[in-house]
Amino acid sequence: MSGLSHVDDEGRARMVDVGGKPVTRRTAVASGRLDTTAEVIGLVRDERMPKRDVLATARLAGIQGAKRTSELIPLAHPLPLDTVEVEVELHDTWMAISATAVVTGRTGVEMEALTAVAVAGLTLHDMVKAVDPGCVLGDIRLVSKTGGKSDIGVANV
Amino acid sequence: MSGLSHVDDEGRARMVDVGGKPVTRRTAVASGRLDTTAEVIGLVRDERMPKRDVLATARLAGIQGAKRTSELIPLAHPLPLDTVEVEVELHDTWMAISATAVVTGRTGVEMEALTAVAVAGLTLHDMVKAVDPGCVLGDIRLVSKTGGKSDIGVANV
Amino acid sequence: MSGLSHVDDEGRARMVDVGGKPVTRRTAVASGRLDTTAEVIGLVRDERMPKRDVLATARLAGIQGAKRTSELIPLAHPLPLDTVEVEVELHDTWMAISATAVVTGRTGVEMEALTAVAVAGLTLHDMVKAVDPGCVLGDIRLVSKTGGKSDIGVANV
Amino acid sequence: MSGLSHVDDEGRARMVDVGGKPVTRRTAVASGRLDTTAEVIGLVRDERMPKRDVLATARLAGIQGAKRTSELIPLAHPLPLDTVEVEVELHDTWMAISATAVVTGRTGVEMEALTAVAVAGLTLHDMVKAVDPGCVLGDIRLVSKTGGKSDIGVANV
Amino acid sequence: MSGLSHVDDEGRARMVDVGGKPVTRRTAVASGRLDTTAEVIGLVRDERMPKRDVLATARLAGIQGAKRTSELIPLAHPLPLDTVEVEVELHDTWMAISATAVVTGRTGVEMEALTAVAVAGLTLHDMVKAVDPGCVLGDIRLVSKTGGKSDIGVANV
Amino acid sequence: MSGLSHVDDEGRARMVDVGGKPVTRRTAVASGRLDTTAEVIGLVRDERMPKRDVLATARLAGIQGAKRTSELIPLAHPLPLDTVEVEVELHDTWMAISATAVVTGRTGVEMEALTAVAVAGLTLHDMVKAVDPGCVLGDIRLVSKTGGKSDIGVANV
Repeated sequence: MSGLSHVDDEGRARMVDVGGKPVTRRTAVASGRLDTTAEVIGLVRDERMPKRDVLATARLAGIQGAKRTSELIPLAHPLPLDTVEVEVELHDTWMAISATAVVTGRTGVEMEALTAVAVAGLTLHDMVKAVDPGCVLGDIRLVSKTGGKSDIGVANV
Repeated sequence: MSGLSHVDDEGRARMVDVGGKPVTRRTAVASGRLDTTAEVIGLVRDERMPKRDVLATARLAGIQGAKRTSELIPLAHPLPLDTVEVEVELHDTWMAISATAVVTGRTGVEMEALTAVAVAGLTLHDMVKAVDPGCVLGDIRLVSKTGGKSDIGVANV
Repeated sequence: MSGLSHVDDEGRARMVDVGGKPVTRRTAVASGRLDTTAEVIGLVRDERMPKRDVLATARLAGIQGAKRTSELIPLAHPLPLDTVEVEVELHDTWMAISATAVVTGRTGVEMEALTAVAVAGLTLHDMVKAVDPGCVLGDIRLVSKTGGKSDIGVANV
Repeated sequence: MSGLSHVDDEGRARMVDVGGKPVTRRTAVASGRLDTTAEVIGLVRDERMPKRDVLATARLAGIQGAKRTSELIPLAHPLPLDTVEVEVELHDTWMAISATAVVTGRTGVEMEALTAVAVAGLTLHDMVKAVDPGCVLGDIRLVSKTGGKSDIGVANV
Repeated sequence: MSGLSHVDDEGRARMVDVGGKPVTRRTAVASGRLDTTAEVIGLVRDERMPKRDVLATARLAGIQGAKRTSELIPLAHPLPLDTVEVEVELHDTWMAISATAVVTGRTGVEMEALTAVAVAGLTLHDMVKAVDPGCVLGDIRLVSKTGGKSDIGVANV
Repeated sequence: MSGLSHVDDEGRARMVDVGGKPVTRRTAVASGRLDTTAEVIGLVRDERMPKRDVLATARLAGIQGAKRTSELIPLAHPLPLDTVEVEVELHDTWMAISATAVVTGRTGVEMEALTAVAVAGLTLHDMVKAVDPGCVLGDIRLVSKTGGKSDIGVANV
């Protein structure tokens, strides 16, 4: 095969018409990471803080971001998501972010999972930037997808 | 040093009160990259396509994403942006993404610049994923900021 | 039974996965009230005003608010609503607000009906606050729901 | 006194023109409550859950809701908020919700504070409704405002 | 004269940087019309209907649309509007739509006034289309603007 | 015949309940035009500009606008669009705008197609207004619809 699905023969951006695709249960998993410092990880983990909302804030932002994918990504379709999950794990100098999006619909939810990871990561960046303005959000990628024409295991986390 | 600016003494997430900060012209520059394949770069660059909307779509998505930063990032402030610029440059197997956000206001626009890069990158991911589902969006970081309490040159691109 | 459906075993917020639930016609009715003064009710009812947009504004705000429930309520699902109705009735010193939301989908519309009532009520509050800053929006509750696993008549209005 | 500020002489809904008002620091405090059961309060408070995101979710939803007030309330003005704070306190069979909104601008932030309370309350309702579908959100009122033409202490909480 | 303000030297779309422009009170007036049938005008005007929400709905949609201009128009700036007014007048077989937008800010509000007219007109179209699917929304133009570098009276209505 | 579908017997605005309508593939085509000057058309067409984003920007704005129809039009239903296409053709002193919206759902997509045309047209207006503030957006109409109770060919373009 050849071309990009989101541009027509003349190179114009277009939405793919998903009307002919079957309604199936479709899942996508994406991941990413925020590289920061041991000091930041310590502050986020801090046992002296009874509430520690940092990770909850990032998870919620990711979930809400996933629900707005079709507003952010110009050629994405509005989808009635079944669920979105976002996880953040603390490591020594970095945080692992992962997201799972699920829909019963006519097209996949890769962008929803990727958007959840990116927005959760941006939210973490926002909260740590006063301490570590040099933190880096990266490695945002699709891990797997199921329910479409062919299942894909894209990467190993 | 001390704590995270976005959590209070008990660890609860909070918006920083920016009312006491001066109104100044503030700028932030952020960057990132999408790693993909030479095939994809060739398709995006394709000289036979008269319109080649791919990069325009990513730039516009980045600009529009920046304008919605305060909706995406829970503790970010709504800001009347002066301008946002997004650039995408094609390299052999990757694309360089950069964004500049500018405001005349009471708080910085780091998150607006970073959000522009992330949304432009997600949009590129969306458009190339049918050809390269393994592409990776990364290295999203603040490059510099000016106009706040102290200018920062965070990174060299 | 035991726990809250919207937190997992570790207490993390989560969306419920509705993918396994059947698509049925689901209805929810909610109600609330705005307590104000006889003077305000007189102004809203004023026969000398040919247009009296106050109640129309509240009804429309409620309908539009219902359509945005999944953006406002972090763990709510985006739903393709069949219809939303909002009613406001004038009483001597208060207004009765009620809303009905209907969907053909996999999960209930309680939050859509409740959001319609709350946003209609906030809109009324906005319009009367110059005359009665002490008005109170309250008694926002689910009245009934049908179409789910079990019909509920929660309250009598 | 006279009429409703948000309708013109013929009863048509209108935005108030705030262009002639001075830019001042303006604050508003609002409050409300969710009446539920001791069982629900116990589940929210549950010490066995290490994360207990319920209250964080409500606080964040309230903050984000406040930032969208002008989209929800048809005649409200878009405002560059300085900050929003939302608090939830647990009592035996109910939760107390309060919100403070602050702006440096030409008009008050009563609706932002009230919207924060209402959206936080709706979010709590969403999370407890599987256990207590009869919970009631109410008593949403303005507590005080400062910075406008006249300071008001509307209510005692 | 020379080029389009919204494309750079290479033809790339861009936001204009408004940071160097003075903060002034700026006004724009726009107009348009919906051509339909005498039957529709009769239904909208119908004296037997006590509430006749049709025009209120269009006015409110226009006001709310104006507030979202920067989300709809990719290169428009977010602006803290002072006020928006929308009027609809009934004629024999058509409706005249006009809108005034006002800001105290660094750039003009032409697009806000035009968007208000267009969204009010689309809303009217929506409400009459079951009776007159052939109705036409047109003649959407800027009438005048003040407060910028030069006042303009563009058209006579 | 009889009344307007979007007002009830008392004239109150209402959403139509679409729950009883069958799920079918539904298409709508709409068109419009922007009348401007030969100078503007020359600038948009300019062969010296390698990128010429003007038309891409308008197309993307139209697609994104269509996805937000239910937020802009108060009584419109949220719909999971299959696809949206927007075309802009340059003529001597004007541009022809057309849009096609498609859904597999319970109600038609006329408003989505019309909103796409209007938002694309407003975006063109925004980009040319510095050169031609007198440009006029008009002739926005439904061209055809299929998939509902009866197919309609409303107009000839």
